[in-house]
Amino acid sequence: MNIQSFPFGTSKVDYYFQATINNLTNVAPSSSAIIITDENVYGLYKEQFSDYRTIVIPAGEKYKQQATVNEIIDKLIRMEADRKTTLIGIGGGVVTDITGYVASIYMRGIRFGFVPSTLLAMVDASIGGKNGIDIGVYKNMVGVIRQPSFLLFDVNLLQSLPDSEWSNGFAEIIKHACIKDEVMFQELTQHTLHSYQSNTQLIASLVQRNALLKTGVVQQDEFEQGDRKLLNFGHTLGHAIENQYQIMHGQAVAIGMVYAGIISAQLLGFESLEPLKNVLLNYGLPTTFEFDKSATLAILKMDKKRDNKSIHYILLEKIGKGVINQISLQEIETIIQSF
Amino acid sequence: MNIQSFPFGTSKVDYYFQATINNLTNVAPSSSAIIITDENVYGLYKEQFSDYRTIVIPAGEKYKQQATVNEIIDKLIRMEADRKTTLIGIGGGVVTDITGYVASIYMRGIRFGFVPSTLLAMVDASIGGKNGIDIGVYKNMVGVIRQPSFLLFDVNLLQSLPDSEWSNGFAEIIKHACIKDEVMFQELTQHTLHSYQSNTQLIASLVQRNALLKTGVVQQDEFEQGDRKLLNFGHTLGHAIENQYQIMHGQAVAIGMVYAGIISAQLLGFESLEPLKNVLLNYGLPTTFEFDKSATLAILKMDKKRDNKSIHYILLEKIGKGVINQISLQEIETIIQSF
Repeated sequence: MNIQSFPFGTSKVDYYFQATINNLTNVAPSSSAIIITDENVYGLYKEQFSDYRTIVIPAGEKYKQQATVNEIIDKLIRMEADRKTTLIGIGGGVVTDITGYVASIYMRGIRFGFVPSTLLAMVDASIGGKNGIDIGVYKNMVGVIRQPSFLLFDVNLLQSLPDSEWSNGFAEIIKHACIKDEVMFQELTQHTLHSYQSNTQLIASLVQRNALLKTGVVQQDEFEQGDRKLLNFGHTLGHAIENQYQIMHGQAVAIGMVYAGIISAQLLGFESLEPLKNVLLNYGLPTTFEFDKSATLAILKMDKKRDNKSIHYILLEKIGKGVINQISLQEIETIIQSF
Repeated sequence: MNIQSFPFGTSKVDYYFQATINNLTNVAPSSSAIIITDENVYGLYKEQFSDYRTIVIPAGEKYKQQATVNEIIDKLIRMEADRKTTLIGIGGGVVTDITGYVASIYMRGIRFGFVPSTLLAMVDASIGGKNGIDIGVYKNMVGVIRQPSFLLFDVNLLQSLPDSEWSNGFAEIIKHACIKDEVMFQELTQHTLHSYQSNTQLIASLVQRNALLKTGVVQQDEFEQGDRKLLNFGHTLGHAIENQYQIMHGQAVAIGMVYAGIISAQLLGFESLEPLKNVLLNYGLPTTFEFDKSATLAILKMDKKRDNKSIHYILLEKIGKGVINQISLQEIETIIQSF
């Protein structure tokens, strides 16, 4: 196990790399901790945390809603959870988002930590303290920014994931490479999905590299006044598409990255659109998608990142160098309609 | 108008003393602000904020629940409130608690401020950043600590209050005097409820003194690790009684202060129980109440301030000097059963 601590503006987060769920007992003993997980993770791994009280929620983004929060809070009250209780979210982004949110509001905030069980959660969703729920079709409309006390990484959990979930995580890894890490981009072009799936050391190292990359960005700008916005590369259009069609987050982000790459080529002379498409295809991600442009633009307007009549759109100068561009809604409309 | 700014750990709060609602336009222009108020305040004062978009909620503590939060959030989405929007809570503690909570979670936190309309809200509820909702019978079970950007004090709003609401506020003023300000306690013994009701300058001065007193305590200990607990004087037993009987918060706190005074006499030799009772009676507050002791102790056990088997109980060494005492639940049970 490799333990590293990172200070954030309001707190400190302990990262347990190369760990297993069995290490949980040292981080948050079962006497004062309650696990929140979903029915999939519970079905696969419940023996590994059988000495913990556990709240099991239904699996899937459609349950990242207030009704689930209400159920969890009712159960916490019945379990007599108090200010000394630690909540542990074991699962993908839905579980970690909802666990962090509940822990941030229950009794005005109690301790919490995560054991991310998907690649997406390990490299992205569990890191950075953004948590919350969707309100109807509006993603992450309600939540707070509050850091977990710990993150425990057990890459053995990835072995039960289908290929589509691996691709889902690689979308965010490719995003990180695009905005901040050209060397990692080259590494990704030299490997395949299969090479990471079949080599525990390789994927553990990639997970740690990405967790640290995102951590560094968030530490510099916890409340997203500047550089943290770079992490939205591919997400502006991606979210708008994801809201309308039944595709996975990583697929939507992949498409968003391709379109952002095209806009980058037009506005900033970005020259690596083909390598970007190739690496996406290499990790099982789409590069084209037919979507309703007018409906998508309407959703963009309601996007959280909207700043009156313009949007902070993340573009690439080159691979490894993301930049924040203020683009008017009008200009975006013109470009998207011209695709 | 008298403007003062106070830094808290995570932000700065601007206090507008001797102001009127008309000054709101300078603090949070109607173009980017939405008012949240209750039907009582709206009925009395709507002309004074008619150029603002307004969300009106039903009046009363029983609406300080998730269902009201859901309704407000749905309306904010329909109004296209975004991260540049300011929410203004105009009302008593229920309105300010719920406004602060919604603003803290909507889009992971937007700007907010308060115009407290009751004496209780001016001297206590609107100050300190605690916000949230009740879950069933459990008071303030869900919420966050986040400071408002501004507080605007318009004591003219007090003129529409019934005497019982004035008494409600004086319970917290007397509490402040007991734990921190012997000179104010003497002032209170020399005046009457009527003298404050009939003299705008006198009540404006008292409001400001109490707002500043509470602000000082919270600034030292925003997240209630120490001295802020003093503000719970009278509240431990008070909340437990308030949860069971249909009495006002101030009445419950008054009874809680009398019992805390009796315990203080037993454990710390506190000698001013009679002056404390007299000042409570002087401001229309009760000093005795028949309550179910066993049921009350059961609720105490679930109190948020419970720390395993003991409670941080606030006692008085003398008037103006509150202290935090760790008392076992067993000892409290013995004392309360002996009353």
